[in-house]
Amino acid sequence: MLTAARATVPLFDYLAEARRLAIDEIKRLVPAGHECGAVLYDLMLDYPLRDAKGLRPALCIATSRALGGGLEATLPSAALLELYHNAFLIHDDVEDGSELRRDRPTLHHEHGVPVAINVGDGMLALALEPLLGNLRTVGLGKALRIMQTIARMARETAEGQAMELAWIRDGRWDVSDDDYYRMVMKKTGWYSFIAPITIGATIAGGSDAHLATLVEMARELAVAFQIRDDVLNLTASYGKESCGDLWEGKRTLIVLHTMRSLPAASRAAAQAILARPRPTPIAPSRRALLARLELEGEISARARALLEGSDAAKTADDVAQLSQWIDEHASIDYASQIATEHALRARTALLRAELRPSAHHDVLQALVDFTIARET
Amino acid sequence: MLTAARATVPLFDYLAEARRLAIDEIKRLVPAGHECGAVLYDLMLDYPLRDAKGLRPALCIATSRALGGGLEATLPSAALLELYHNAFLIHDDVEDGSELRRDRPTLHHEHGVPVAINVGDGMLALALEPLLGNLRTVGLGKALRIMQTIARMARETAEGQAMELAWIRDGRWDVSDDDYYRMVMKKTGWYSFIAPITIGATIAGGSDAHLATLVEMARELAVAFQIRDDVLNLTASYGKESCGDLWEGKRTLIVLHTMRSLPAASRAAAQAILARPRPTPIAPSRRALLARLELEGEISARARALLEGSDAAKTADDVAQLSQWIDEHASIDYASQIATEHALRARTALLRAELRPSAHHDVLQALVDFTIARET
Repeated sequence: MLTAARATVPLFDYLAEARRLAIDEIKRLVPAGHECGAVLYDLMLDYPLRDAKGLRPALCIATSRALGGGLEATLPSAALLELYHNAFLIHDDVEDGSELRRDRPTLHHEHGVPVAINVGDGMLALALEPLLGNLRTVGLGKALRIMQTIARMARETAEGQAMELAWIRDGRWDVSDDDYYRMVMKKTGWYSFIAPITIGATIAGGSDAHLATLVEMARELAVAFQIRDDVLNLTASYGKESCGDLWEGKRTLIVLHTMRSLPAASRAAAQAILARPRPTPIAPSRRALLARLELEGEISARARALLEGSDAAKTADDVAQLSQWIDEHASIDYASQIATEHALRARTALLRAELRPSAHHDVLQALVDFTIARET
Repeated sequence: MLTAARATVPLFDYLAEARRLAIDEIKRLVPAGHECGAVLYDLMLDYPLRDAKGLRPALCIATSRALGGGLEATLPSAALLELYHNAFLIHDDVEDGSELRRDRPTLHHEHGVPVAINVGDGMLALALEPLLGNLRTVGLGKALRIMQTIARMARETAEGQAMELAWIRDGRWDVSDDDYYRMVMKKTGWYSFIAPITIGATIAGGSDAHLATLVEMARELAVAFQIRDDVLNLTASYGKESCGDLWEGKRTLIVLHTMRSLPAASRAAAQAILARPRPTPIAPSRRALLARLELEGEISARARALLEGSDAAKTADDVAQLSQWIDEHASIDYASQIATEHALRARTALLRAELRPSAHHDVLQALVDFTIARET
């Protein structure tokens, strides 16, 4: 279907096929039956094979094809983007202490932090191979431009992650909406939108004018997409932990709006809650020890309850209180409105690009609409 | 001095200068005064600026120069190797739960696990720039071969780390000396010896015969160096935690020899000790809570002591017992003997390479001798 020239094509079928093609390409890179399979190579396929949207390979393929690029020439880069994306997810999940990813326990929850970090590093190593393979498939000039884009992308991602980690660690709330946009562009905008679209256009040999307009679309989409992600985090069950952003104390556009809107006393209370760490699960051996000590009369029932909890951590009541403040100040509506504005600007940019009609152009247009309509 | 053609040059001066040049090159890559400095870019210089040997840049530069390569053309690759090396160290320290690196707390002990993982990722991203920059300085063919070497190196490193993590996680002791050599070649041999020497020879445009002989030297050196590292870990204070390998339950040649030599009952006891996790430090807030509960009569003194310790973790007595078994079976002598044999084979390989006399050749020879004589 990704090779067809039909005028319309259902978006989800296109996404699914782009994802399948990228996974097939990754499977060609990941050795099967390797002695390090169980703790390295097999786990590289874990996140990609979970129920994902396939957004990045689809963006890369649709952009390339819409500008006249070939599917075969685009696939190694689609796989490359998917490898980087999933490596970042694995490391981010460790860094954020996230529990769920795509409806299943995060990789470090299933296999431990050491294995998870190493699998991410292994995926970054493996991604160097399609980067080099591009030399054969798209030629020297384009392959080098793709490498430059990936180098920039990887730096931007680390900077975005650093910005967010610093805000949380330093308890900073003097964060403006503009700071949020800048962080989002770096942390997810580059690897989810700017790089896939830039690389797709590079492979097709698109003009500088096309590239500039499509990158503008990518930037608007990136903001719309992330805001929608923040909204879904608070309102839907969509594969991540419900309200995970509140447990992790993230500075989303929604929470920033609520904080600005709260009276001083409540704002201080909200800051105090958000500053608390999320509870760390008690180890089974520790739980057993506490039970035994209580039985032996060495600790009281109250002490056991206290020691089983994690002092100074957030509670479910804390998170419910934050949710209530967010509702009271209509912060989700505020953020959704802004997401819609960015999606509209993305659509305008796509129109200005004046691509010739194709199924791939239709997919880009459908992706813009999907960005704010999506429920997962 | 690295440009001089003198016949002999003191090894440590050469190492120090190679390290300084690599750090200068890294400083050119790392933006100063960046808004993400405090949690990203400044921390990329933390490990490189600690008191390190500069082994990898020196090997790369000495190999290149000994084969007629230029210093300027070699520096970006020396920096690249140092960036990868230090990124791996940061991630390894998190994965191993290590406490000290080069006489100071590990990066994740000082700045937290999330920042440490991200700094490592940022260094891997930054390393893509000298990889691309090589195109200008050494030309297309050599730049591509260097990229291929780095891609292979990064994969081998992840595989070696995976092998070791799997042995520890699965409690495996059916590990032969040959398994150990294979793991060492992947985990540290590739990035510490094979890649620096291969890249140095590539830059100089050395012959295939030279490359093959020098890679043989690299492989022998890698084993000798790692065994010496294992010995120092148990016998010296050299910047890492004393007996850290025993605390972490690592399969070193020394411990494998002791395990083979112990009678069955003691072997089972040793396995049980090595399988226990290292104790995790108790949080100050938790310590305060326990003290308060004891004051209030909610827990007994015995319960407090038990709860302050970490149940089922290794103790200092455990590690002392392991050390005693290692001494009783002369396992350090066994391993040192093997290290010497490998160093001798490395020296023979270097002789067979028949490099023309130069200060750089002398440095390679001195490095072989240093590998087993070193005390840090």
